[in-house]
Amino acid sequence: MKSQVVTFLIKCPDQKGLVAKITSFFYDKGFNILSCQQYVNSIEDTYFMRIRLNADGTEISKKELEKSFLELATPLEFDWSVNYGDKKQNVAIMVSHTSHNLYDLLERYKEGRLDCNVKMIISNHDKLRHIADMFDVPYHYLPVKKETKLQQETQVRNLLDANAIDLVVMARYMQILSSDFINYFKDKIINIHHSFLPAFQGANPYKRAYERGVKLIGATAHYATEDLDEGPIIEQDVKPVTHESTPTTLKRIGADIEKLVLARAVKNHLNNQIIVSGNRAIVFPEAGE
Amino acid sequence: MKSQVVTFLIKCPDQKGLVAKITSFFYDKGFNILSCQQYVNSIEDTYFMRIRLNADGTEISKKELEKSFLELATPLEFDWSVNYGDKKQNVAIMVSHTSHNLYDLLERYKEGRLDCNVKMIISNHDKLRHIADMFDVPYHYLPVKKETKLQQETQVRNLLDANAIDLVVMARYMQILSSDFINYFKDKIINIHHSFLPAFQGANPYKRAYERGVKLIGATAHYATEDLDEGPIIEQDVKPVTHESTPTTLKRIGADIEKLVLARAVKNHLNNQIIVSGNRAIVFPEAGE
Amino acid sequence: MKSQVVTFLIKCPDQKGLVAKITSFFYDKGFNILSCQQYVNSIEDTYFMRIRLNADGTEISKKELEKSFLELATPLEFDWSVNYGDKKQNVAIMVSHTSHNLYDLLERYKEGRLDCNVKMIISNHDKLRHIADMFDVPYHYLPVKKETKLQQETQVRNLLDANAIDLVVMARYMQILSSDFINYFKDKIINIHHSFLPAFQGANPYKRAYERGVKLIGATAHYATEDLDEGPIIEQDVKPVTHESTPTTLKRIGADIEKLVLARAVKNHLNNQIIVSGNRAIVFPEAGE
Amino acid sequence: MKSQVVTFLIKCPDQKGLVAKITSFFYDKGFNILSCQQYVNSIEDTYFMRIRLNADGTEISKKELEKSFLELATPLEFDWSVNYGDKKQNVAIMVSHTSHNLYDLLERYKEGRLDCNVKMIISNHDKLRHIADMFDVPYHYLPVKKETKLQQETQVRNLLDANAIDLVVMARYMQILSSDFINYFKDKIINIHHSFLPAFQGANPYKRAYERGVKLIGATAHYATEDLDEGPIIEQDVKPVTHESTPTTLKRIGADIEKLVLARAVKNHLNNQIIVSGNRAIVFPEAGE
Repeated sequence: MKSQVVTFLIKCPDQKGLVAKITSFFYDKGFNILSCQQYVNSIEDTYFMRIRLNADGTEISKKELEKSFLELATPLEFDWSVNYGDKKQNVAIMVSHTSHNLYDLLERYKEGRLDCNVKMIISNHDKLRHIADMFDVPYHYLPVKKETKLQQETQVRNLLDANAIDLVVMARYMQILSSDFINYFKDKIINIHHSFLPAFQGANPYKRAYERGVKLIGATAHYATEDLDEGPIIEQDVKPVTHESTPTTLKRIGADIEKLVLARAVKNHLNNQIIVSGNRAIVFPEAGE
Repeated sequence: MKSQVVTFLIKCPDQKGLVAKITSFFYDKGFNILSCQQYVNSIEDTYFMRIRLNADGTEISKKELEKSFLELATPLEFDWSVNYGDKKQNVAIMVSHTSHNLYDLLERYKEGRLDCNVKMIISNHDKLRHIADMFDVPYHYLPVKKETKLQQETQVRNLLDANAIDLVVMARYMQILSSDFINYFKDKIINIHHSFLPAFQGANPYKRAYERGVKLIGATAHYATEDLDEGPIIEQDVKPVTHESTPTTLKRIGADIEKLVLARAVKNHLNNQIIVSGNRAIVFPEAGE
Repeated sequence: MKSQVVTFLIKCPDQKGLVAKITSFFYDKGFNILSCQQYVNSIEDTYFMRIRLNADGTEISKKELEKSFLELATPLEFDWSVNYGDKKQNVAIMVSHTSHNLYDLLERYKEGRLDCNVKMIISNHDKLRHIADMFDVPYHYLPVKKETKLQQETQVRNLLDANAIDLVVMARYMQILSSDFINYFKDKIINIHHSFLPAFQGANPYKRAYERGVKLIGATAHYATEDLDEGPIIEQDVKPVTHESTPTTLKRIGADIEKLVLARAVKNHLNNQIIVSGNRAIVFPEAGE
Repeated sequence: MKSQVVTFLIKCPDQKGLVAKITSFFYDKGFNILSCQQYVNSIEDTYFMRIRLNADGTEISKKELEKSFLELATPLEFDWSVNYGDKKQNVAIMVSHTSHNLYDLLERYKEGRLDCNVKMIISNHDKLRHIADMFDVPYHYLPVKKETKLQQETQVRNLLDANAIDLVVMARYMQILSSDFINYFKDKIINIHHSFLPAFQGANPYKRAYERGVKLIGATAHYATEDLDEGPIIEQDVKPVTHESTPTTLKRIGADIEKLVLARAVKNHLNNQIIVSGNRAIVFPEAGE
């Protein structure tokens, strides 16, 4: 391996000696451990680790490393993944009418602040094509009607497959995806919902926030699951509002929260900071990265 | 009237000339207008005003003022109230097991940071009596069982009436009050709920917040209404949390939010900053007060 | 006047009857008062008002209105301005190397979320031209050296004058402007400083924040004055950080704060929400706008 | 060792294999590692670890453990400390006139939310004695004049020594301590400053915040050092304010921030979450504790 950062994400039943065994394994193989973050869920007796390695001092191949690691992982019942940091992830962004999240993601991508390849934008409307053009990213307009829903989804899926997409970002894509679609890309679809979930699940959160008279509005980025707006939460944020705010004002204030929340969630995913466990997302903070 | 701050709260159908008419009325009577805050709800065509007056330059009596004001108020369909700032409001605090809100309110009261008389603490348990004793406030232990619920509520109500209580603060009182009780003290009972409503209405919000994996927890102070946890929201706040937080940690972090949120709501109520309109609370900010 | 929103900003010595006199004036002229916000600085005995009017019911001309208003304003010593809402303000953005604020402002402008004409971008480097091109805004590259500083400033000034620029936004323009320049555009230059002023005035705030070990970083938008970083503060915000943050991480986290803080300050200025008084900026909140 | 949580804090030059060596050491001794948090400062090439152990499976004595640990620590140049969790720390609180921090700390202590023994309150005024009495904590009134300053400090120091005080909390103690005193209790004095340092170091921060027109006010808890208000920052927080805030309002809003910030800093210290390194405090978050 060349000079690169290798990240392992591990989940397993909690037991004595895990950190010693795992870190000794990598030390013995010649890796320098850049950071090693753990989380023990003592309610479910589950152990989680994110460990980042510098491969500079090692001659080991990926294949040898993984073979060797399996000997450790199997008896300890690891559920694990590894990212070698040598290949940017391919991202597709799905949108409908709303532009603020799209602009924000493309700006970060363009300026090198999102470590990925944005391969395409997919929309059920033709409205935001000019933004794709500005940033020179292919735009696929795939309209959808009730009767063509599954057909359109197949088109989307074919596009994603053809481009080896690793992550789908629903940046205000206002269509419900089928269970089949969701499960095909399990833990690989990030959605932004424009409320602080679980408040105001479903449609029109800003209007309902106005009617309820809340003093905070927010946004939530989560992995898409079969149950709409009930997937593992990655990021949330809120801003204070007052009685002066109309649904229109809330929408405007909310747009800024949505942008930051979705961008952080996508960054955390691309940076291998997340392990999903049931309905909860373990999101490790950056370790001086 | 002596040197005192008089506060009028007004709600009426929106129409041209309201602020000119109202401010001219008070100016003509010799008042100095300290602050004049308005809010127009253009969705419901309703106008709200909070106006604070210095009575120094006037000889007018309360009776004359109110009689005169009625001539303005009636044709314009004002829903109004006035507070002459010459009498502290009487407050009762209701608690069950949890002490942090009680300590906080009593500390602010004792140190002159809550402008009221805390006349009594009422509890369905005897557990927090030592705190009442520390702060030298009467403690009424009124236990409640399923079969004695209404009876106990009558005892509570008699106590409140006998002491001319203006405001009831439910500082983690874990009993549901009857509709009769609630309506008898309409817009005069402030409750603290330990979640950012409408998320996690009902029981065990911290446990459910843990299970849902939220990245924020919060608290909400609201007026008690028949529908539990659905009354007009006065104050809300949240703090970020992580996957590391257990239900116990969330409870601890939440306690600090609950304290600030309830104290601010009570202060805003006592300071005549709130007009309730349907299910929304118009909470005017302090005006350099 | 056509159907438009007229905004008056008024500052004067505090005295009895101001709100009644001002609101009656506009009511008598047939205006509907949309909102009327006041602030009394009782330390300096100064009164501030922002009043928004709907001109629908009036036939009065601007000239007549202003002539008439002067009869009220002169004896009461008003320092005032009026905006008729019938002409977008012309804005110039000045930048150096850093792109995030520029992207953010242009996105808001393009999507109709900043009510102005961005007439040009001026830079002492040619580096961000591609962004100007993307958004189709003229880019003026005016390099500056020590010996050509005043000369370049004259070029800038001529450009601003030739385009009737109403507001200059220094979106990370890393040059110190001369007093002459600053005073020529008094209260018309908004600068973003990448720290929560008055902490870390001057150069390299993120590096100094790291060295000082602060647990918060922030950004400040303020009017530019002769004394660098000491002008009236319009907006500030912060985010929590930890010991893990390097100067590079702080820069990245800070970029998101800078974007929101500068955009809000520019919006508040364009929306006539600000009155400058000495070294303090009175920033009225939106009134249901 | 009985069933208890043992915490090691370690600081050393960064080098390969540290986490493997340290965790293997404790695993080999029979400890269960509850949590293991690291921080690598790559600017200064320094490594920090906080490791929490459950001693349930071990028979080793403290003496044996420490002797054995030294064999690991010495060659790797550890700067380390251990806390066996079997003895509450002794705390002294120093105050002058202001009561809010004192109330807050005593309430948390009384209700078991601060894991320590508050042995005494020391003040240069007799004003807050009633609070000490309420909470049944000894109150030492040690007045100070210019000419008796060193003498009073000696009295304070004797009191602290006589009571084996582990931590001094300056909860708005408005006297400057001598270098001798500070150094005698190095990294054992926590001070609360009522501004978001380094802004408004020194006297009257709220008045200066008003004059500067900041839109945020805050508080900072830090270790006391010879240079006033320049010690390692443990906790900071801010709240938004507006032009409406007077110095008096700022003081009131600030009081709530001061309470939370100081309480969190004291909790973090007592819970062995902090390693001081030069002028920076490494504050590890709780690990599901």
